[in-house]
Amino acid sequence: MNAATPQPNLADDIIAAIRSVVGPRPVALHEPRFGGNEWAYLKECLDSTFVSSVGKFVDRFEAELAAYTGARHAVAVMNGTAALHVAMQLAGVQPDDEVLIPALTFVATACAVRYCGALPHFVDSEERTLGLDIDALRDYLQGATELRAGKCVNRSSGRIIRALVPMHVFGHPMNIEAALDLARDFHLMLIEDAAESLGSTVHGRHTGTFGVMGTLSFNGNKTVTTGGGGAILFDDTELARRAKHLTTTAKVPHRWEYRHDAVGYNYRMPNLNAALGCAQLEQLDGFIAAKRRLFERYRTAFTRVPQVRLMTEPSGSRSNYWLQTLLLDESAAGQRDWILAATNDAGLMTRPLWTLMHLLEPYRDCPRMDLSAAESLARRIINIPSSSQLGSTSAN
Amino acid sequence: MNAATPQPNLADDIIAAIRSVVGPRPVALHEPRFGGNEWAYLKECLDSTFVSSVGKFVDRFEAELAAYTGARHAVAVMNGTAALHVAMQLAGVQPDDEVLIPALTFVATACAVRYCGALPHFVDSEERTLGLDIDALRDYLQGATELRAGKCVNRSSGRIIRALVPMHVFGHPMNIEAALDLARDFHLMLIEDAAESLGSTVHGRHTGTFGVMGTLSFNGNKTVTTGGGGAILFDDTELARRAKHLTTTAKVPHRWEYRHDAVGYNYRMPNLNAALGCAQLEQLDGFIAAKRRLFERYRTAFTRVPQVRLMTEPSGSRSNYWLQTLLLDESAAGQRDWILAATNDAGLMTRPLWTLMHLLEPYRDCPRMDLSAAESLARRIINIPSSSQLGSTSAN
Repeated sequence: MNAATPQPNLADDIIAAIRSVVGPRPVALHEPRFGGNEWAYLKECLDSTFVSSVGKFVDRFEAELAAYTGARHAVAVMNGTAALHVAMQLAGVQPDDEVLIPALTFVATACAVRYCGALPHFVDSEERTLGLDIDALRDYLQGATELRAGKCVNRSSGRIIRALVPMHVFGHPMNIEAALDLARDFHLMLIEDAAESLGSTVHGRHTGTFGVMGTLSFNGNKTVTTGGGGAILFDDTELARRAKHLTTTAKVPHRWEYRHDAVGYNYRMPNLNAALGCAQLEQLDGFIAAKRRLFERYRTAFTRVPQVRLMTEPSGSRSNYWLQTLLLDESAAGQRDWILAATNDAGLMTRPLWTLMHLLEPYRDCPRMDLSAAESLARRIINIPSSSQLGSTSAN
Repeated sequence: MNAATPQPNLADDIIAAIRSVVGPRPVALHEPRFGGNEWAYLKECLDSTFVSSVGKFVDRFEAELAAYTGARHAVAVMNGTAALHVAMQLAGVQPDDEVLIPALTFVATACAVRYCGALPHFVDSEERTLGLDIDALRDYLQGATELRAGKCVNRSSGRIIRALVPMHVFGHPMNIEAALDLARDFHLMLIEDAAESLGSTVHGRHTGTFGVMGTLSFNGNKTVTTGGGGAILFDDTELARRAKHLTTTAKVPHRWEYRHDAVGYNYRMPNLNAALGCAQLEQLDGFIAAKRRLFERYRTAFTRVPQVRLMTEPSGSRSNYWLQTLLLDESAAGQRDWILAATNDAGLMTRPLWTLMHLLEPYRDCPRMDLSAAESLARRIINIPSSSQLGSTSAN
């Protein structure tokens, strides 16, 4: 079969399968859902006049995030990118260090490395989880690095590899326990990018709580949203304190003095956005249950479609199914753009994987291992409509 | 008179003068005021589900900011710090450059310079405007710099001085026309920090529209607030386009592709916050009228208080009177902390000037000119309650 030939049947089959689940109307990829106390809390926030950098909703949102995830501390910030940036700074990432990140991730991970003046070093992914291929990474690091004075050093560049930043892609947990072992063996700080995996767990433990720090995102397309927002999860109280300090302009507390003892950031989450977040968190379990029901319906619908597999949570883990993911067979990979066009034309919003990081202009010259698996996934992945609303009612 | 001896009479006089204007109840330094369409627009935003990175309120807020200030373009971002950071990047500030900024400013200006990898170079201020002393700066630059290949170079460090970032302190316009002349003569990019001066004008022209770029802040303590927010003003269409691109992760527009052609930032203002901003902007003229009435009332009240002068808008300019400012005589400077304690103890929130930048730990070793005037102002300035509410009703 020639992969370059449009196959109306495959696109038609996919459209029919999606429609059998979501109904005949146009649907977005992911829409937020405001069915709880959103209005009440926003109004309370306005009435209090505390809409900005201080206010009880920020404290409450942080406490509830910590309670929900099982982290000891959570620090709310303005988005997931800011969370990654500060986490990397606190992990000690310095100018001219390298940081191991997936080539298969959203660009924020690579940006955050650059904000620290360091270089991303791209790692391959595995099809089973869509996350980092830890076995392949171990083999690669054994050849490419050596320990010098307790630091992992890239033999060819001579730079210190300071940290490892795995990501739980589309909410599906990656092999985080193996990543922890590898980070220990190679003396790397582990920052866990859980931007997409709020509510996802591995052996019952919440993603984002395995690493030294974990990061979350509450962008409008996420499982819960604050408009724009993020958070960092901590077990270490001192790290959490430093994160709060750095993200609030490094101002030293004083009744009236304005003194700042470091180059800080204005990264705090406004109380207005935290108010929305508190209302959203109250509904999180319901959102995830609906998204898991949506997965079950898609699973049934896609059993009838050849050359396509629906991404299923890896064994031992529980996914929030943030974005439902189709994996085309390699034989159908050439049809990807045609399927994207046909589904979007049909009012069913779909999207491909992000362009892999090493193919983006600003990151082309960064160090990397063999990225064959990520490149194969990039040819074959299509996300389909995933809003929790679609799993809330009986099938259309 | 010994400046170290507490003078109950002066603090008591100041408390009495403030109370004669604001009444007997405790008052904050600056409270936001939500008396317009805030709730309606927030509700509309929720109902639309567009709370995040896209939505009509962001476009509308930008258009209304441009119309109000007379700038050709406005790009909304998440706070004034982000606005300064991106403006400096677009002005071409490079690692190891120097940027001329006031020692007397909020720390965000210095932070933004450091985010670019450059060094702040601190400039003195003048008592008349609280802004940069352009005459003294001109004298200083004539001695300390030289032109090399069209660039202003610091003779002693050898570094390029790339930009000049004056700030309109507490809303009072600085001598921006002279700053423009100086920037032209010394080949400096002029970025105008109008974070505090929304509604303030010089010869009828809005602050923030004189420089190549101007920056605004909508933090909770500002004249209008979006919870957290900022904006950059532009006359140049191409610069504005690049700012929008850089602040939205440098994503290249495409129907489904995720491609980013630069190391961008996740700095956009969420639609939720812009909704609040649209409602606030509708009330801006009323807020400023009230703040000017408050100034008149304070002026009357403080004529009776010796050793204290109320800061008045510089001639030729119109101030938004964001923060009402007392200037103690040098003879009373030693009483500053005592007055701060007494007023705050009395439930009247007051604050001193920011700690000058060159006295902050991270900026101690940065280049600077003589800063005597700024140091004198830092000893003598006290801001007193300034909310527009206090000027809205008949005097209490």
